[in-house]
Amino acid sequence: MKNLLNILDLSEKEIEELIATAEDIDANPDKYRDACKHKILATLFFEPSTRTRLSFETAMLSLGGGVVSVAGANTSSAAKGESVADTVEVVSGYVDIIAMRHPKEGAPYVAVRHSSVPVINAGDGGHYHPTQTLADMLTIYREKGGFENLKIGFCGDLKYGRTVHSLISAMSRYKGVEFVLISPEELKLPSFVKRDYIEEKGISYIESESLEDNIGSLDVLYMTRIQKERFGSEEEYERLKDSYILTEEKMRLAGKETIVLHPLPRVNEISVKVDDDPRACYFRQTVNGKLMRMALILKMLEKNKSSEKNDGAFQENTFVSDKYDCTNPHCICECEQELSRLFYKDKTGKVFCAYCEHEASEK
Amino acid sequence: MKNLLNILDLSEKEIEELIATAEDIDANPDKYRDACKHKILATLFFEPSTRTRLSFETAMLSLGGGVVSVAGANTSSAAKGESVADTVEVVSGYVDIIAMRHPKEGAPYVAVRHSSVPVINAGDGGHYHPTQTLADMLTIYREKGGFENLKIGFCGDLKYGRTVHSLISAMSRYKGVEFVLISPEELKLPSFVKRDYIEEKGISYIESESLEDNIGSLDVLYMTRIQKERFGSEEEYERLKDSYILTEEKMRLAGKETIVLHPLPRVNEISVKVDDDPRACYFRQTVNGKLMRMALILKMLEKNKSSEKNDGAFQENTFVSDKYDCTNPHCICECEQELSRLFYKDKTGKVFCAYCEHEASEK
Amino acid sequence: MKNLLNILDLSEKEIEELIATAEDIDANPDKYRDACKHKILATLFFEPSTRTRLSFETAMLSLGGGVVSVAGANTSSAAKGESVADTVEVVSGYVDIIAMRHPKEGAPYVAVRHSSVPVINAGDGGHYHPTQTLADMLTIYREKGGFENLKIGFCGDLKYGRTVHSLISAMSRYKGVEFVLISPEELKLPSFVKRDYIEEKGISYIESESLEDNIGSLDVLYMTRIQKERFGSEEEYERLKDSYILTEEKMRLAGKETIVLHPLPRVNEISVKVDDDPRACYFRQTVNGKLMRMALILKMLEKNKSSEKNDGAFQENTFVSDKYDCTNPHCICECEQELSRLFYKDKTGKVFCAYCEHEASEK
Repeated sequence: MKNLLNILDLSEKEIEELIATAEDIDANPDKYRDACKHKILATLFFEPSTRTRLSFETAMLSLGGGVVSVAGANTSSAAKGESVADTVEVVSGYVDIIAMRHPKEGAPYVAVRHSSVPVINAGDGGHYHPTQTLADMLTIYREKGGFENLKIGFCGDLKYGRTVHSLISAMSRYKGVEFVLISPEELKLPSFVKRDYIEEKGISYIESESLEDNIGSLDVLYMTRIQKERFGSEEEYERLKDSYILTEEKMRLAGKETIVLHPLPRVNEISVKVDDDPRACYFRQTVNGKLMRMALILKMLEKNKSSEKNDGAFQENTFVSDKYDCTNPHCICECEQELSRLFYKDKTGKVFCAYCEHEASEK
Repeated sequence: MKNLLNILDLSEKEIEELIATAEDIDANPDKYRDACKHKILATLFFEPSTRTRLSFETAMLSLGGGVVSVAGANTSSAAKGESVADTVEVVSGYVDIIAMRHPKEGAPYVAVRHSSVPVINAGDGGHYHPTQTLADMLTIYREKGGFENLKIGFCGDLKYGRTVHSLISAMSRYKGVEFVLISPEELKLPSFVKRDYIEEKGISYIESESLEDNIGSLDVLYMTRIQKERFGSEEEYERLKDSYILTEEKMRLAGKETIVLHPLPRVNEISVKVDDDPRACYFRQTVNGKLMRMALILKMLEKNKSSEKNDGAFQENTFVSDKYDCTNPHCICECEQELSRLFYKDKTGKVFCAYCEHEASEK
Repeated sequence: MKNLLNILDLSEKEIEELIATAEDIDANPDKYRDACKHKILATLFFEPSTRTRLSFETAMLSLGGGVVSVAGANTSSAAKGESVADTVEVVSGYVDIIAMRHPKEGAPYVAVRHSSVPVINAGDGGHYHPTQTLADMLTIYREKGGFENLKIGFCGDLKYGRTVHSLISAMSRYKGVEFVLISPEELKLPSFVKRDYIEEKGISYIESESLEDNIGSLDVLYMTRIQKERFGSEEEYERLKDSYILTEEKMRLAGKETIVLHPLPRVNEISVKVDDDPRACYFRQTVNGKLMRMALILKMLEKNKSSEKNDGAFQENTFVSDKYDCTNPHCICECEQELSRLFYKDKTGKVFCAYCEHEASEK
C-alpha cells in the first residue's frame, strides 16, 4: 500500500496492523510525538469538510509533523482552471504526503498518477472514503472486541451512502457477519454492492423498511442521513421520515449491547437525547478516526522510501482507449482536461472507467 | 477558570496573574518557547476576523504548540447544517484548547457544555469579547502603571460596542475610576450596563455628546467606530460624524498623558496622522493582545488536568424550562437545533436566557 | 535587502548567494531543518494563489518555523474595510516575516512602510512577482550551468505577463544574453520594458509572431498563457491561438538542449504530452521555487537584526505631493484610504507613482 484510495486496498492483515498501531498510539501518545518530525502533510480539500480535514491535520500535528492546507475550492487555483493533475504534481514536490478530498469521483486516482508522494483519499464524491471506514472499524473492534459473528444493521440512505458501501465491502471479509439493510424502497442498497459483497460471498442478509422491527437483534447499528429530496415523493417522505430517526424510544427497543455508529455530520437523524446513552459511539468514533489516521500516516511515510510515480497503481491492467466513453457525470474525467481515458475489464469482459469504476459505454 | 466566556469570569487577582505572566513572556520569550509543545489549539471562527485569529494562532505558535483552523463559515460543515454542539464535541476530541468566534450570542456557552477541553470566547456577536478586554487592560496597565484613579473616556458607539461594555465592567472593579461617556444621544450606553457597573457601584461618570469638551481631562480615551446606519437620521449623521473622528487637531486638546486605545479594525474614526503620536497606543495594544492570549492559553492548559465536561459552567443555577422563551434574534438558541432551553433568575426574580443573557419572556 | 518587492532589489551577487544557499539546502536538508525554529511566517494572500502560498508555507515549515495564513480576501478583515497599512502594522507585531499577495499594484510597498518585519512581495497585480523570477533563475542556472551567453525566448502574452518583464530585467544584467520575443502583434513587450532592459543595454533581440520559426535556436523557452480576451479580435484569436500552444510536434523542432519553463498554472498552452519530455522543466521549476524561498527567508531573517520601520525603503527620493495624480486604476492608491500620495522623478524629470511606478499626471 503506497496510496489509499479504497478501503479494499488494505488487506485484513494491514487493517489489523493499523488497529494495533492506533491502540498503541492511544495508550502511549508520548512514544509517537516526534514520529513524523520534519515531515509535511498537505490537506487538499477541493470541497469543504471541516471535521475530516481537522482530523487529518491534528493527526499529523500529534505525530510532530507540519501541515499546509487548501480548504475549499474557492480559495484555490482551481478557479483559474488548474487541473488536479498539475496541482498534485506541484504540491507533491513540496510535501511528504497528501490527503485529498474532491467532489468528483476518481479524482484521487488522477492524483496518485501525478504524485511523487503517498496520496490518501479523504472522500471523492459518492465514490470512496476509506479513512471513514477505518474509523468505523476501529470503533467496532474496540466496542465489540473483533469483527467476526456480528449482525450489522445499516439504516437510512443505503443507495447513495458511500460510507455504507465501503463498510459493507470491508466487513464482508470476516466470518459469520450478517447484514440488515434498513431503508425505504427507493434508497435500497445498489444491486452491484449487494451482488459483489454480500450475495457472491454467501453472506446472510435481510432487507427491511423498518428500523423498529430490527433494532432489537443488532450488534451494530450504522445510521446515515436521508436527504428529503431523495425520497420518491412528498407523501413517501412524510410517511417514512420519522421511522428513520433514532430516538430514545427506539433505543429502548435496541439490545443492551447494540452500538450506534454514524459517520457525522448529523442533522436530525439521531436525537441529541441519545448522545448520553453509553451505546451511542459516534463521538468516540471520531476520536478513533484521528487515531487511525495517525496510524495510517505513520505507515505510509515508513513505506515511502522510493519517489517514483505510481503510474501502475490502483486498477491493474488498465488500458487507454478511445473506443469507450465514461458517461458518469460525476467522474473526474468529465472536467479534467487532457486526461487520458483509462479503462479496465472485469472477469466477465465488461469495461469500466478506471477513475470512477462506473461501467463504460462503447462509442 | 476552566473556560473564558466573559471578562468577569476572571477575578482581579486572576487578571493580575495574567498580566504578570504576559510581562514575563515579553521580557523572557525564550523561557516560554516550548511551554505548550505537543499541545494543539483549534481556532473555530464561524465568522471571519483575521486579526483576532492570527493573534491566537501566533500566541500558540510562540508557545511551541500547534494550530488548526476553521476560518469563515463558508469553508466549514456549518453549511451542511452541523450544530455548534456537535462540531465542538468532535473537535474537542482532537485538540487541547479551543478559541471560538461565532456571530450568534451565547454560542461559546453551547461550546463549553459540549467540550472536553477549555474554550475561549473570541467574540460572540454583540455579546462578549473577553480577550480584547485583556488586551485593553494590559495596555492601560503598562501605559498608566495600574488601574486605580483613572478617568476613562469612551467615545463613539457605546450602545452596540461590546468591547466598551466589557471594559467598563472590568474597570468598574478598581478604586477611584471615573467614566466619561461620549456618544450621540441614540448611541448612549445601555441602561443595564450603566446601572450594573456604574450606578450600583457608586462610580462617578458624566455623559456628553462632545469629544472636544472632554478630551483634555482624560487619562484614557477609548475610541470606537460608529456605523452610519446607527445614527437616528441622515441629518443627525451629517451633524455629528466629524465630531467623533479623532484628528491631529483634537489630539492637541488632549492631555499630555492621555492615551488613545481602539479595538481595531478602524475605518476612519482615527486619522492615520494620529498614528505617530506617542499617545496613540492602538498598535501596541494589539501586541499586548497577543501577550495576554499567550498568558491565558498557558494558564488554561495548566489548569486543565481533568477532562470532564463543563455542564455546570458559566451561569450557576440554570434550569431547563419550556415556560419561557428567549426572544433575542441574535441568540444561538434561535438557530441551534434541539438545544435545551436554559434560563436563570437574577436576585430580583427576573428570568434570563442562559446563553445570551437577555431577559426571557413568559410564553 | 531588508524587503523584496522587485527582483532588481537583489544584486547579481545576492542572487548568486541565494542560489548557493538553495543548492546547499537541496544537498543537505538536515542542516537547515531547525534554521528558523521559533520564527513565524505570515502568508497574507488578499487574492488566492494556492501554489505560491503553499510554496512559501512549506519553505518555512522545512526550515523548522511556524506559519499563519490568510488565504483569500473573503475570509479577511479586508471585507470590513481595514486598510493594508493597518493589517500589516498589526500582523508585523505578531510574526517575524510576511509574504504578501495583493491584487493591487504597489500594495507591498504600503506594507513595507508599515511593517516592523521583512516583507516579501508574493505578487502584486500585474506589477512584480520576484520569487517567481528566483524560481526561474535557479532553474536556468541548474539546467544551463549559468546565466551568460543564453538565447532566451519568451512566448505568449508579453504585454501583461509580469513574470516575463521581471525575468527580462533580471537576465539583462548578464553577458551575452539574447532575447527572442514571440507574441501576437497586440501582446508585444511594452516599449518601456524593451527600452530600459534591452535597448539601453545594447542587448541583441528579435521580435516575431512565430514560435515554430524560432524554437530551434533557443537555449531557454519561457512559455506564458494568452487569455482569449486579450486578442484584438475573434478572427485574430482563431488565426493565432494554436501557434502559441506548445505541442509534441513543436518540441520536435526545438533544440536538443532547449529547456521549457512556465510559471504555472497552465491551462492548455503546453500540452500534457510534453510533460514527460526531459527538456520540460516547469515542474522542477516549482521545486526550485520552494528552495529559493527557503534561501530567501533564511537570508532575510538573518539580516533583520533591527526592528525599525522601513520608511525609506524601495524608491529613493520619494516625495509627497498633491500636485500629481496616479491614474493607474490598478494601483493600491486607488483603494487604500488616507494613503499619502508618494512620487519620484526619474533622471529625465518625469514623475512616477512610488507605489505602482506608473507615470503620474499633473493635476
